[in-house]
Amino acid sequence: MTKINPLVRSLTAPPIPAVAAWAAEYDGSLGKLIDLAQAVPGYPPHPQLLEWLGQEAASPANAGYGPIEGQTALRNAYAAEVSRIYAAGLDAAKIHITAGCNQAFFATALAIAGSGDRILMTNPYYFNQETTLAMLGIEVGLIDCDPEAGFVPDLDQLVAALKPDVRAVALVTPNNPTGAVYPSDLLEKVYDLCRANGSWLILDETYRDFLQGEGAPHALFQRPDWKDVLIGLYSFSKSFCIPGHRLGAITAGEELVEEIAKVMDNLQICAPKPPQMAVAKAIPALADWRAENREEIDRRVVALKAAMDKLPEWHVASIGAYFAFIRHPFDGVSAELVARELARRVGVSCLPGSYFGNGLERYLRFAFANAGAETLVLLTDRLKRLEIG
Amino acid sequence: MTKINPLVRSLTAPPIPAVAAWAAEYDGSLGKLIDLAQAVPGYPPHPQLLEWLGQEAASPANAGYGPIEGQTALRNAYAAEVSRIYAAGLDAAKIHITAGCNQAFFATALAIAGSGDRILMTNPYYFNQETTLAMLGIEVGLIDCDPEAGFVPDLDQLVAALKPDVRAVALVTPNNPTGAVYPSDLLEKVYDLCRANGSWLILDETYRDFLQGEGAPHALFQRPDWKDVLIGLYSFSKSFCIPGHRLGAITAGEELVEEIAKVMDNLQICAPKPPQMAVAKAIPALADWRAENREEIDRRVVALKAAMDKLPEWHVASIGAYFAFIRHPFDGVSAELVARELARRVGVSCLPGSYFGNGLERYLRFAFANAGAETLVLLTDRLKRLEIG
Repeated sequence: MTKINPLVRSLTAPPIPAVAAWAAEYDGSLGKLIDLAQAVPGYPPHPQLLEWLGQEAASPANAGYGPIEGQTALRNAYAAEVSRIYAAGLDAAKIHITAGCNQAFFATALAIAGSGDRILMTNPYYFNQETTLAMLGIEVGLIDCDPEAGFVPDLDQLVAALKPDVRAVALVTPNNPTGAVYPSDLLEKVYDLCRANGSWLILDETYRDFLQGEGAPHALFQRPDWKDVLIGLYSFSKSFCIPGHRLGAITAGEELVEEIAKVMDNLQICAPKPPQMAVAKAIPALADWRAENREEIDRRVVALKAAMDKLPEWHVASIGAYFAFIRHPFDGVSAELVARELARRVGVSCLPGSYFGNGLERYLRFAFANAGAETLVLLTDRLKRLEIG
Repeated sequence: MTKINPLVRSLTAPPIPAVAAWAAEYDGSLGKLIDLAQAVPGYPPHPQLLEWLGQEAASPANAGYGPIEGQTALRNAYAAEVSRIYAAGLDAAKIHITAGCNQAFFATALAIAGSGDRILMTNPYYFNQETTLAMLGIEVGLIDCDPEAGFVPDLDQLVAALKPDVRAVALVTPNNPTGAVYPSDLLEKVYDLCRANGSWLILDETYRDFLQGEGAPHALFQRPDWKDVLIGLYSFSKSFCIPGHRLGAITAGEELVEEIAKVMDNLQICAPKPPQMAVAKAIPALADWRAENREEIDRRVVALKAAMDKLPEWHVASIGAYFAFIRHPFDGVSAELVARELARRVGVSCLPGSYFGNGLERYLRFAFANAGAETLVLLTDRLKRLEIG
């Protein structure tokens, strides 16, 4: 078909539905499908949240448009939460609510960069961020993450790539797809490099709530000049198990929030109103439940490691808050073929590493948080049975 | 602030909040504010729909992601509806659900055009469509609509403007802001011109359900080659009174739906799932209620005309399904000043014509469908009291 934007036309079809099609070919002979493909929490939302979601959706008061930047109740609740997490004094004016974190990235990218500008990402990257930039005509520069160094970005490469045309450096931590958690001191260095180059640092922390350990993930929101450098992205989808309701958030300086509001007004006027009202209540009310989920995810880390330890030919290259990046044993076989055969033959659905960047044919992304420990233990047998060639 | 996309930076702040700020200055001395600014139905959603919205939002089954293109139930229900309205056989594969009609336009524009391409719109235009194109770097060409000819686009200007770089012609009928309903034979001619030029025809029919009279608004979906030319946009916000839930739809050929899905995957993965499930039920179930609303809006047309007839210095230049374009009597005074003073002094909130294009300082947009007939009758006294200068 002609008359299509070539930047869109040249993109491959969205990967998740394609991977789901492989899983549909699995005959069930080894038991239920183990779905580690799309990142979706393997447990339902809290019953209280479901009740609030229902009440707010049934309310005529929420049927009308809300403010572009988000409901004040949710902006306040989320501002209080990020202030607590980062030990920083952030108010509602620094929060913009979006319909999920993909939209948070899209609106941010468009607010700060146009066709021909450049944004740096890591390799591997989260594919929707790469395709967002590609379809907007924004040039993408890639900073390699060394598997031997735990998949953190290579600072020497970053220094070399930070040319004047770089509008931003976009990082995801805890990382999608590798699960790598970027250390605070690395983030400090990247921040300083961005500031010196006049570039934004976009920090997608969608999986922040599943970090183990105490203390803030970083101290960047305490920097006196953070509003000129830092843009924080977040999703309520994973923490509250409500991706179908579409809610995310941007933390940025007030001036940038105003520019993002111009984009959001065109993109969809405002995020859906009823879930905003429900999540505003849930943020303070469900703190304990979220802490329990964090512990549950940690049990899944242990279960996955134990299952993989019994497979000497397979290697857990990296594992973090939600994802593991797994090195498969099939030399010379594409990651896509391995993932397809895993799904079709032994009922394990995951994403090929090659969907996340260059030179990643030996890797698979396991969204292990999707599955309980009692399911993850079954991976040993399933993976052992896989024969290719 | 530097480091902002200049295409975004140069846009003025979204107009609706600015206009709301004027209304907040009204002292209430003449009675309640008459809000004819943002187009929002002046009656609540049907109680049955609210009940379904609540049930679907409380369901764990709807907490997860849905298909990018939309829930099958809603795509089927909407395909059946457009098939009935246009007497055309359209199936679910030709429907893409979005989070409102602004997003439908945004995703469509990005799927078919990139930076430097050109899309033609009318003058006046719906401002969010113009700013969408501007921030994407898509050139905008304007086709004048003559007030004396009922604000329909000038076909001679269109012929002259249809150069090879024009990717699409975007029309809104019933029109926002003028209320003009474009006749079927005019749309046939525009379609033929677009087809001959290899351009898309984007037809935003958000206010279609409020058209008076019987029969299809046009026969374009019956054309054998419609999938190569026509893209239909729609919003569930006005017809079902649920703008806060964010739902819209695109009707297009299957191939274009696939390209739009690539954009939507990045834009927000999928429209919110619970309201999709509720509206899928409401489309067949609430047909009678929607027909009653159409009649109610028609009563409002009559009431507005009666109120304005008593004001010889004011002129209803155009009136249609949802909006009236009103010529104010203040020669040499900007539309923005008139609208501001109307809001602040006499409690009538509306949008200045100048927000919708060039040379429109003598006009105001009244979203008359927001207010009941018993309220619209009060306009005579309010407008009479306005003194400027």
